[in-house]
Amino acid sequence: KHILIVPGDGIGQEVTEVGKKVLEKIAAKFGHDFTYDEALIGHVAIEATGDALPAETLEKMKASDAVLFGAVGHPKYDNDPSAKVRPEQGLLKMRKELGLYANLRPIKLFDELLSASSIKPEILKGADILFFRELTGDIYFGEKGRKNNGDTAYDVAEYSRYEVERIGRKAFEAARTRKKHLVSVDKANVLESSRLWREEIQKLALEYPDVTVEYQFVDATAMLLIKDPKRFDVVVTANLFGDILTDEASQIAGSMGMLASASIGDGTGVYEPIHGSAHDITGKGLANPMASVLSVALLLDISFGMKAESEVVINAVDQVLKKGFRTGDIADETTDKSMILGTDAIG
Amino acid sequence: KHILIVPGDGIGQEVTEVGKKVLEKIAAKFGHDFTYDEALIGHVAIEATGDALPAETLEKMKASDAVLFGAVGHPKYDNDPSAKVRPEQGLLKMRKELGLYANLRPIKLFDELLSASSIKPEILKGADILFFRELTGDIYFGEKGRKNNGDTAYDVAEYSRYEVERIGRKAFEAARTRKKHLVSVDKANVLESSRLWREEIQKLALEYPDVTVEYQFVDATAMLLIKDPKRFDVVVTANLFGDILTDEASQIAGSMGMLASASIGDGTGVYEPIHGSAHDITGKGLANPMASVLSVALLLDISFGMKAESEVVINAVDQVLKKGFRTGDIADETTDKSMILGTDAIG
Ligand SMILES: CC(C)[C@H](C(=O)O)[C@@H](O)C(=O)O
Ligand SMILES: CC(C)[C@H](C(=O)O)[C@@H](O)C(=O)O
Repeated sequence: KHILIVPGDGIGQEVTEVGKKVLEKIAAKFGHDFTYDEALIGHVAIEATGDALPAETLEKMKASDAVLFGAVGHPKYDNDPSAKVRPEQGLLKMRKELGLYANLRPIKLFDELLSASSIKPEILKGADILFFRELTGDIYFGEKGRKNNGDTAYDVAEYSRYEVERIGRKAFEAARTRKKHLVSVDKANVLESSRLWREEIQKLALEYPDVTVEYQFVDATAMLLIKDPKRFDVVVTANLFGDILTDEASQIAGSMGMLASASIGDGTGVYEPIHGSAHDITGKGLANPMASVLSVALLLDISFGMKAESEVVINAVDQVLKKGFRTGDIADETTDKSMILGTDAIG
Repeated sequence: KHILIVPGDGIGQEVTEVGKKVLEKIAAKFGHDFTYDEALIGHVAIEATGDALPAETLEKMKASDAVLFGAVGHPKYDNDPSAKVRPEQGLLKMRKELGLYANLRPIKLFDELLSASSIKPEILKGADILFFRELTGDIYFGEKGRKNNGDTAYDVAEYSRYEVERIGRKAFEAARTRKKHLVSVDKANVLESSRLWREEIQKLALEYPDVTVEYQFVDATAMLLIKDPKRFDVVVTANLFGDILTDEASQIAGSMGMLASASIGDGTGVYEPIHGSAHDITGKGLANPMASVLSVALLLDISFGMKAESEVVINAVDQVLKKGFRTGDIADETTDKSMILGTDAIG
């Protein structure tokens, strides 16, 4: 199996290094032959080549069996709304070119982290949510621009039936293997694209009579995720709503630093933390690498079908937490200072 | 002063009744002469006239000094994505026709409700956020429709510089009277309308050097609101992001049933709970009327300039809570069952 490491920007570098070490350990332990290559994306790619997703990176991605991804982004562009080239363009182009239409974001709290969240332990205990975020449509990829001499800006949100159906199907299939409960999130009381979304999910529901489907508006969902996270099993939603709701839901898992994601489609799968480049802590060795390590677990499971290997990785994270080791983001007032480790040490 | 009561749908009826009684009490206590009228909107208006916002209602709104609003919505339409007439159209048309471009949503926790939230008390204590949600632009009001023989649906998100400037200015002015900290929320790393938004806020910031401005992406904000609500003072954001983030933030105040909002523009102001029609509890006398009562407080303060009267109302809510009375939504395991009251009784 050939794995492409794409660290990207900021702490992406530090955390994928740990992820790669875990892949090497797994290969040694299970006698697999993994080969590795590396490629640039985002701000570091712009600096080196002028392009946020160089053609060479895209080719390497297509030629690999899986991609372990870090993060993209740089404050420089955020504060300059008129910048023409941006790190995020690399990420979005990758998603589109690789056809990564389904972004899986499992939200599960390790028991040891029950007290690390700002939400009460009794509300959290037992919460286990699997998000399916559509990743190659919506307002991310519709036409956008300026008009009226630049005085008006617009972005078009768009969904086709086909796009909704294929992500919906993935979510229904997953619900079948879990608690058979699916929440479809939209804003059908206002948006036409949401109404089409709901129509398609309603049609699919007829094919999956064993799955209970609930329709929620995105605003109500943002509230319910905090009020009662245990009521959710599988959630399926559009690109933008998924972006917002999964970041919010990271608080259910104690910290964004614990959350991995899998982006899948018809070709190579991409595995990455849901956290971003975090330039405020970059280079300090403070980043929590567990989201990258858990991304490795998803990679092994989903792209390579290596279930046992994947479980060994998740179990390793669990053991580290059980022994009391923490990174800063998941430490709380009860944590012994000597148990708070940096990126490498905890890796 | 002439006040139009527009109860709308579901629990809107029950809660505005309590709101009106509070207005009557205030008039009696302070010797004001308030007159009242009533009008239809939403599902009840569709049933009676075929129109979600009858011309008569709109005229009455324009002719009144303030509107006390309930809620709109009905599950019947939610489950029928192809319905042509919908209750929400009445709400959106009202906002547009009355030019209600600024929606103020104050999020403040009454001390007595510290334990009613799913968020830890120590995270919440002292949180006090004022949201400015833009209310007459964005993807709510851009062109929308179907194409490709109905197989694709689209919605256009749109902002002009003028629209951003006027809501931005209101937020900066409010920040000046508070902790002088403003968070502007957008998705400028992806959306062109967000980039224009950020450009305009950056320009305004030059006029308000005494206000510290922070720019956050909507996904990060959804996370930070739960992780550390105290870091926020005033927040300004677009229509859709504001819809999602304020519902989420309701958990900071213990319950959606406690949150009032003011929609203001150049003419008549509209005051309403942020909760919806809640058909699951409609007609059962279970609804928490405090959001409507606190909407009355905002109405007295903002539309009538009656500061003392407004404070009397807020204080009354505080006293009710201090005495231990609760509605179901804000009761917790420590609440004596006999202290849990229905809508009328607590009103
Ligand atoms: C960096 C940004 C463009 C991206 C997104 O909005 O999709 C990120 O927030 C994510 O969730 O992967
Ligand atoms: C009912 C709905 C159209 C409305 C909105 O999205 O604005 C509601 O959620 C609100 O926040 O007032």
